[in-house]
Parts: sequence; C-alpha cells; structure tokens
Amino acid sequence: MAMTGVLRPGHAVVRVLDLDESVKFYTNVMGLKETGRDKGGRVYFKCQDERDHNSFIIRKADRAGLDCFGFKVLNKATLATLEGRLREYGVATERVPAGEMLETGERVRFQLPTGHTIERFADKTDVGNGLGYTNPEAMMPEFKGINPVRMDHCLIYGGDIDGNRKLFEEVLDFTLVERIKLEDGTTDLATWLTCSAKAHDIAMVRHAEDGKLHHVSFLLDTWEQVLRAADIMSINRVSIDMGPTRHGVTRGTTIYFFDPSGNRMETFCGGYDFYPDMHPTTWTWDEVGAAVFYHDRKLNPAFLTVVT
Amino acid sequence: MAMTGVLRPGHAVVRVLDLDESVKFYTNVMGLKETGRDKGGRVYFKCQDERDHNSFIIRKADRAGLDCFGFKVLNKATLATLEGRLREYGVATERVPAGEMLETGERVRFQLPTGHTIERFADKTDVGNGLGYTNPEAMMPEFKGINPVRMDHCLIYGGDIDGNRKLFEEVLDFTLVERIKLEDGTTDLATWLTCSAKAHDIAMVRHAEDGKLHHVSFLLDTWEQVLRAADIMSINRVSIDMGPTRHGVTRGTTIYFFDPSGNRMETFCGGYDFYPDMHPTTWTWDEVGAAVFYHDRKLNPAFLTVVT
Amino acid sequence: MAMTGVLRPGHAVVRVLDLDESVKFYTNVMGLKETGRDKGGRVYFKCQDERDHNSFIIRKADRAGLDCFGFKVLNKATLATLEGRLREYGVATERVPAGEMLETGERVRFQLPTGHTIERFADKTDVGNGLGYTNPEAMMPEFKGINPVRMDHCLIYGGDIDGNRKLFEEVLDFTLVERIKLEDGTTDLATWLTCSAKAHDIAMVRHAEDGKLHHVSFLLDTWEQVLRAADIMSINRVSIDMGPTRHGVTRGTTIYFFDPSGNRMETFCGGYDFYPDMHPTTWTWDEVGAAVFYHDRKLNPAFLTVVT
Amino acid sequence: MAMTGVLRPGHAVVRVLDLDESVKFYTNVMGLKETGRDKGGRVYFKCQDERDHNSFIIRKADRAGLDCFGFKVLNKATLATLEGRLREYGVATERVPAGEMLETGERVRFQLPTGHTIERFADKTDVGNGLGYTNPEAMMPEFKGINPVRMDHCLIYGGDIDGNRKLFEEVLDFTLVERIKLEDGTTDLATWLTCSAKAHDIAMVRHAEDGKLHHVSFLLDTWEQVLRAADIMSINRVSIDMGPTRHGVTRGTTIYFFDPSGNRMETFCGGYDFYPDMHPTTWTWDEVGAAVFYHDRKLNPAFLTVVT
Repeated sequence: MAMTGVLRPGHAVVRVLDLDESVKFYTNVMGLKETGRDKGGRVYFKCQDERDHNSFIIRKADRAGLDCFGFKVLNKATLATLEGRLREYGVATERVPAGEMLETGERVRFQLPTGHTIERFADKTDVGNGLGYTNPEAMMPEFKGINPVRMDHCLIYGGDIDGNRKLFEEVLDFTLVERIKLEDGTTDLATWLTCSAKAHDIAMVRHAEDGKLHHVSFLLDTWEQVLRAADIMSINRVSIDMGPTRHGVTRGTTIYFFDPSGNRMETFCGGYDFYPDMHPTTWTWDEVGAAVFYHDRKLNPAFLTVVT
Repeated sequence: MAMTGVLRPGHAVVRVLDLDESVKFYTNVMGLKETGRDKGGRVYFKCQDERDHNSFIIRKADRAGLDCFGFKVLNKATLATLEGRLREYGVATERVPAGEMLETGERVRFQLPTGHTIERFADKTDVGNGLGYTNPEAMMPEFKGINPVRMDHCLIYGGDIDGNRKLFEEVLDFTLVERIKLEDGTTDLATWLTCSAKAHDIAMVRHAEDGKLHHVSFLLDTWEQVLRAADIMSINRVSIDMGPTRHGVTRGTTIYFFDPSGNRMETFCGGYDFYPDMHPTTWTWDEVGAAVFYHDRKLNPAFLTVVT
Repeated sequence: MAMTGVLRPGHAVVRVLDLDESVKFYTNVMGLKETGRDKGGRVYFKCQDERDHNSFIIRKADRAGLDCFGFKVLNKATLATLEGRLREYGVATERVPAGEMLETGERVRFQLPTGHTIERFADKTDVGNGLGYTNPEAMMPEFKGINPVRMDHCLIYGGDIDGNRKLFEEVLDFTLVERIKLEDGTTDLATWLTCSAKAHDIAMVRHAEDGKLHHVSFLLDTWEQVLRAADIMSINRVSIDMGPTRHGVTRGTTIYFFDPSGNRMETFCGGYDFYPDMHPTTWTWDEVGAAVFYHDRKLNPAFLTVVT
Repeated sequence: MAMTGVLRPGHAVVRVLDLDESVKFYTNVMGLKETGRDKGGRVYFKCQDERDHNSFIIRKADRAGLDCFGFKVLNKATLATLEGRLREYGVATERVPAGEMLETGERVRFQLPTGHTIERFADKTDVGNGLGYTNPEAMMPEFKGINPVRMDHCLIYGGDIDGNRKLFEEVLDFTLVERIKLEDGTTDLATWLTCSAKAHDIAMVRHAEDGKLHHVSFLLDTWEQVLRAADIMSINRVSIDMGPTRHGVTRGTTIYFFDPSGNRMETFCGGYDFYPDMHPTTWTWDEVGAAVFYHDRKLNPAFLTVVT
C-alpha cells in the first residue's frame, strides 16, 4: 500500500496536577472515553472514532507537561527498521516491553534534539469505534462533551528544532509542510511536518527551554462542532486561550484552551491534504501573525510564552 | 515519506456529446477552471485547490463515457517500477509520450480486467492554486458555480471486479476499504479501494457490460457546500439523480447528478480517514440500500442500471 | 408591541396507534421532553427551547391524524376579541375550560371550513427552557435524539382551503406568504400563511377529503442538524418520505418522515423572514415540483396522496 | 396581521472619511449592492435579500459616526399615529419630505434622549431581491464579498439609556429582551429591544458621551458564512475587533470589525426568536463578560471605549 512506515500519532502521555479533576475534565468536557487505568496510576482515553484502545493518557505529577508522544507504525518490521535507522543516525533507542502501557505492544523510545521523548509502536488493541466492521451506522448517536474524532497531532517547543526536523525527515520519512521564518529570513521559528496526507502530524516552535508542550490537538469534524466545543468550554468555565478562529498555517480552524493543569489543548478542524508532490509553504516573519491566527493577523502574547 | 507509490487520482478523461454545452456546464455550473485545449479537441480543467495543470478533461464523441482514469505516482522511478510489476503480472502496458496531454509527462497505460483504461503518470505542471507557497491566504474569494476542491475518485462498472481488485491490491498497492456482498454472502457486488488515507480513490460495481462509468466524483469541503451545490444544480436545471444524502459506505455526503451528456457526476464531502491497520468494512446484501443511500436505506433503480 | 394578536403555533394534538411505542419514538428519536400525562391518557411533550409546558401532545386512537392545532395569543383580552370576531364572521366557537389540558388556560375552539379543529389559548405555564432568565448559558449540553428547537407549524389537507384562507386572513389577521396555483392559473393548490415574521405558521393543500394532516413540523437550527436528524432517523429505522432537501416555498430545508403510526412529521430549518410590506410569492403549476422539492423539481407521489 | 406598528430597521446613515475608499469597502468586501447616489453625495446600498431600495447609506464627513437610524413602519397611518404619540409624549418631531432620500417616502425624524437621530418611514421602493415573486430560485448564485442577508440592527452609546428605553417601550411599542446590570444591581449598563420577533432591533449602552455609534449589524445566514466573512476580512486586511465568537446576549454569533473610517460594523448570525410572552433576560455585572463575549467570558477593552 501507499501508506507505509510511520502511520500517525498514536498516543500522547500528559502530566496533570489533580487526577480526579482531570479525569472529570477529559471525560465530561472533552468527551473522551476512559478505557482503562494501570497500576502506575495512568488513566487511558480514546476518542469517538478511534479503534485503538487508547490515544490520550494522563498521569499525576508535580508539574504539567508532556511525558511522551507516540507514533503508530505499520508493523513490527517497520518498528525494527526504524530503530535501526535511528541508531545508525546516532540516536540512542530504548525498547519498552509490550504491556507496559495497557493494550499496547512493544515501544521504541528515543529523545529528540529538543529533549522530548518520542515513542514508536506497531500494536495497540483494536477495541473498535462502536460501529463495527459490518453494516456500520454512520455515527454513534449518544455522546457527551466535545467528543473529538481523534487525537490528531501535537506542537512542541524546544531549542534545536532544526535537529528535530532533520531527524524526522531523514530517519522517519516525515515531510516538511509549512514553516515560519524568523526576521533573518533564514532561521525557522516553527515547522510543521507530516507522515501522511495530513497537513501536520507534529509541529515544533523554537524556544529557549527544551522539552516543552504547546498543545495536544484533537480533531473535530466541522466548524459547527468547533462552535459547539467553544460553547461547552464556556458552560464548563474552561479557560479559552484563543478562538474559535482559523490558522493561516494548514488553514485549519481552531480553539486553544487549557486543561485544569494548565496544559494547552486544541480542538482542530480542517486543514488541506498534503501530497509529496507539493512544496512546503513558507511564512515570512512579518506575516507570523496571520500564519498563526489568520483572522486577527497578530499573535497573542501567550502563543510564544505559555507552555508546560 | 510515508506516502509512496500511487499518490492519488490525477485525471479523468470523459466523453461528451456537445463540447460547447459541456464546457459551459463544467465552467459555469461546476465552476471548474478551464486551463487549456489541445489540437485533438480535448478541453482541460482543474479544480480550485488543485495545483496540477489539469484533472478533468472532456472530448467530443458519439457516446458519453470514460476514456480513461489516470493516477499520479510519486516520481518517474515509481512509474517504471509499477510498469515492471504490471508486466510481470501479465498486463500489457503502453507508454504515451510526455506532452500528448497538455502539461503532462509520460503516461503508462493499461487495461483493467473490466476493460477500463487506466493511466499512471509522474509529472503534471504545477500551475498553482492561486494562493502561492508564501504567506498564502486561506481561500480564493472569487469563484463561480459549485467550485469543488478537487477531482476525488471514480466509480466504474464492469464484469471482473475481482480481477480488478486483485490487480489494484497486488500490483499497485491499493487497499480494500469497503465492500458490498451479493445475496450469496461471498461474491462482491462492489468494492472501494484506496491508495492513500482516503476512504476511496477508486470504486467498482459488478455489471453485465464492461468499461462503463458510474460517476466521477468531485470533493466539496462541507455539508453546507453540498446544499449550495444542489441549489446551483436546481437553478441550472441540472438533473439530480439522488441527494443531498449520505452514503453508508465511507459515511460521505453526496449528490449524484448528470452532466449534459448523461455522464453521472458526484459532489462528495467527508468520508473517514483509512489507515492500513484498519479492517475492510463489509455490507451484507440485505443492507445494500443503507450502504449506498444511508438515509433512505434503499437503492434507487438508476443506481444499478444507468451508466455511460 | 409590534407582535400582537395570534403569536404562534402553541400545540398540536396528534392521534397515535400505540402509545408506548410513540412515547419512545418522540422521546428517544425526536428527543422531545415528556412533561406530563393526564387522566385522559394524553402524553405531553415540549421541545428544547420552548418555555411553555407543552407543544406536542399524543393520544391513543384507532386511526392516526390530527385532533387539533392550537395557537397561542397575546393575552386573555385577545382571546375574547378573536372569539367575538369569529362569531361575528359566523363561526361557532366553544370554550374549553382551563386545566382540561395540562398547564393550559382556557381555550377557544372552532372548526375550519376544511373540518380541522383549531384552538386559541392565552396561557400555558412557563416551565422554562432549562437556561433561566438570568445569566443563561447558550445551550443545554445534554440532550438525546433529534432535539428540535420548537414545534413550528403544520400542513393540513382539506377541501375548502379558500374558506380557510379567508378566515385566517380576515378574522385572525394572518397574511398570505406563498401559494401554488393549479393548472387553471387561478385556483390555489396550496397556501402558506403567517401570523408572525415566519415564512409560515400554517399551510394547507386542497384535497378531496377534509380534516387531514400532512405533517407537523419541528424547527432545527442548522442544515448540519438536518443531516444529523436524517442520520438518527436511519439509525432508528424511521421511514423517511423525502429529504434532506430544500423547499422552494419558504426556501427552508427539510426532511419528511413518518412516526410509528404513519403520521408524517417534518424537521425544518431556515425559511426567510416575512414582513407585511412584502408581497405573496406565487408558484405556477408547471413549477409545483420545484415549489415543494427544490432540488428534484418534481413531486414524489406521496406528497399529494399520503395523509392521516 | 400580528405584525403591526414598527416593522424593522430600515436604514442606517453612516458618516465616512473617504467616500471612494468606503464605496469600495462596502461593495467589494461587504458585498453590498450600490443602488444609487444623490445630489447630496450620499451613496445608497442594499443587501442581497432586501427588497427595499436601500438600507445602508454613507456620506463623506470630517468625522465618522451615525447620522441617523431609520425604522420602517407598516403604513402611512402608522407613521401618523406614532408621530402623534411622540408629540403627546413631549418629543419634537420633524417631517422630512418624500424623495429627500432616494426612493424613500416621507420620514418622521426625532431625537432620542441619548442624542441619536431616529427616523420613521412607511415607504421605500421595492426593487426586489433579484428572485422575483413568481417561481423564485432559492438564492442568487453570483455575488461577491461577505454578502449579508440584510441590515439587521444597531447598538448605540449615550447617557440616558433609561429615557431611550422608556420612549421605545411606551411610545413605539418595543419590548425589552435583554439587559446587563451594573455593579449596583439596579442600573442598566445596556439594553436590547425588539419591535418584532427578533432578539433585538436596537440596543444601547450607557456611555459618558451622547450620540455615539458602537456598531451597525448585518445578518448572515450561517456560522459557516461567519467564518467566510472573517476570511474575507483577513484577505482584505480589515481590522477585526473581536470574533468569530458568540454573544451570551441573544446567543447570536458575531464578528466585530471596523470600516476604513473606524466605524465598527458587525456580521451577526442566529439569535433566538422573542415572543411577547417571554420575560426579559438579565445579566448581572459579574457576568458582563459572558454576556458580551460568551466564549472568552471577558470584555475586550475596546467594547466599552471605542465608538464613533
């Protein structure tokens, strides 16, 4: 098949300050489905149209942020091949045994030049999306909260995003889709990369401190669902950082908001399909505002400063 | 990159009975952009968000139907590799020189078991989508007609759809996404195949006569655009076959309608993303109605009988 | 205030064949809220954004159809005035005491020339829409089923629709908004009348048999909600008569479908605002198809024949 | 008919600093249709679905702001009756002869306690919405810019908004729909009033300076059109003040933005229907943020300070 190698973002593991409050938030407000808890205290969630057992995991910690971001690959052979290429490239890898995370196969873990932990895995139990593979209905009529389609991508902050990009491109076969240049016209402030036909599977912004999370993003189907998400946030007194609005980058519509621990999350909709015969889009520094918030055409201060 | 091999549907060449009337229809009603005409009388069109010079081509003929359906592949090497695999599989291939179609590189042409002509090509001139690759706006504000995003897929009718599927899967690395079974529970009435993460790049229905076209499909962004398309069809007295409605297969929303020559076209929106770790969805014969027209849960007579 | 006299449709009382099955349908599929039952066996419902105690009432009977359709008027004085005008016009009226229907004040009842029973009332207990009148949220996040905004209008079938129109215009201060003419260019096949700024509060079609119901209509907010309604109907195997589509008349979008007793219901969205300085719109016989089903531009056979 | 007295906002006359630039803005960006110019230099516009000759008029002046806001009344008799009631109430009125504004009948002009000039008129030439009153299509397929349905309402700033409300309620039969209270829990910061079933036909905010304009509002059909409007604003570098977002008051969705002269305009969608049997909604001071901007739940500084 044409889709090979790294398929898609598979799980985000996020630190929260209060587990009960966070479970309530991700269950009732976000509308994720809790699928399990492990002995280590991690709580597992999946989104409505995901078939894998989990895609979003939280654990209690003293400070918020991202433990790791995982990508699903085509199969075990791909896992091994990519591990070999990482090592050849000079990146240390670690194997985490199957079952260490619930319903998840062996993972290959490594560090990005920006200090973030990335995982690769080939197997996660297919628990279904509730519709089945035979004569499925078109949707699940009962749900609550924002009810995203899937966990979609993340945006990370750190220093050596050039090193990140090089690694994602050369070792993991990602493609650069969009970039924002700094005043010098040369240095990247930010880059968006894809491993599929999505406009982005991961993105990164140059930042003084390594290992930081800007947001984990959840996909919504329509702009009307984005409005509904904003309404649900307001009803639940969720702190909205920005939106509903559109990004210039990817053309997607968006709301940035904060979970109870201060982790920024996003509900995202749209974004064009990217094929490898397209060129990357470049945003110049004078248009950084439009790149990030297309309607206001200016950054809000939090965009470059508030991370976990 | 993860996307390799065959990328996507690249062009459909369709026969029309009256060229001027058809150009008016595809320009004013469909809102395609005419990008050129060649000495052979072919008229070339592209959709709003396509960068390749053309994706939909019409030529005058005595009877309507599909001349050929072309797929774009990653690069010339892929073109050669796939040609080799086709020959190895026992399929005769023909090379059509670059330039035989406007702004289009060399094509490799072959016949499906159902008698349809399929083409592969690696190069088509990037004429842009009007937004550019630097600081692009989010849309082109001026347009007319239905204004689809892209030519998306086609549905063909013929006898040996099993042979078609085998060839697409084994030689061209397509994946089966959905199928409808006949009363016997074994034979496929219809299959949907992807070469990407789309729910379908080509589909086929078992039919007594070979080489037939059911429809060429154009992508719309939203369900509101589907309504607007139906309104524009009504204003222009376009004959609507079915819709606006939803397909059970792919979950996409749809209108089937006829061009002035009787070729069925579709405006399509949505459809889930398909990843290779998913299983194919199967529809049983008693739910064929819901599979095709999800709201009515029954076929209209034209679905199985009216083709060009 | 500028809104005086008859305000809006206030309640429809509909006969059903099986009460339990119907309660399930109107609760779970339509998503109405049951607000009470009376000793006569009537079950009362309201819609999400209605404040009055009830707007849709069902009762068990041997045949389906419409018992009566009620309009709310501004106040008791209006009720008396309109009663006087009805009697002056030669229409017999009957007073039904307050409390005969749950949480409903005294009603004035009379018969239309087409044999339908119409009621007027000034009082129905305000039970609220769940949001309150102080710092209300923008929506109720929890709901099930189709969840219409309100009971909006009805379409009745009978012989003397000219007499109906005259009575509604001359006695009840309704205004003609749209009409469809028969082949003779003179006789009305159908008329749409408003008592407000809505494109219709009641409509009527000329029919051989008196006292018939074509449909009771429920308002939805958006075209996306219309799609969702159609999906919910399909999931629940509700028989859809037509739609999702658009009416030429009123420009509203629509689904016609049947309740378990065969009563046709509608989910409706949109329709322009009508002000009394506008003229009525006329549809000629040759465009009756477009008037009713704007996309198909032809009637389906059931439109003129299937009533309860 | 039930709609009597004052029907709806009929025209806004707005001062602009540069006429040519403003004509370009209202034509190309807002997508209004220019319908005429008079000897006094006023330029007249109408919106897509308005039948009256004009609803929005600009004239060149040294400072931006609102010259007057006009309401259409049912007929000449109403005009006279309301003039009598105004005089009886102690308000001086002035008659402006028919034809002083293009295609507009005689107007009755008076001053609000807040110093704004209000006009009433009964006649404006029906130039149609381009669809006709016989077999109309459902929409005009060709348009440019934001293309609002109609001029919908305005929000004015001034001192004695209590006096305004009293006058609108007691003399002109408007109804209070929503209000925001100041810290004292008694004084109104702002009120929303209707003369129809709309959630507001005019609104006012208490302000140190009289005669000020906060915004003139234009109606859009859908939330998707609101997004499209924001995109068009961005493409044209229109300064967006706030939005797309939702108001708590009326529940409508909104964008506030500035015309080239600094006059704030709004594109608005939705808002519930208000009937006279409903009570006014009250927002307390601690929820003023949610009342105005429902998602952010806080005012932006410009809301209370930037007016023309």
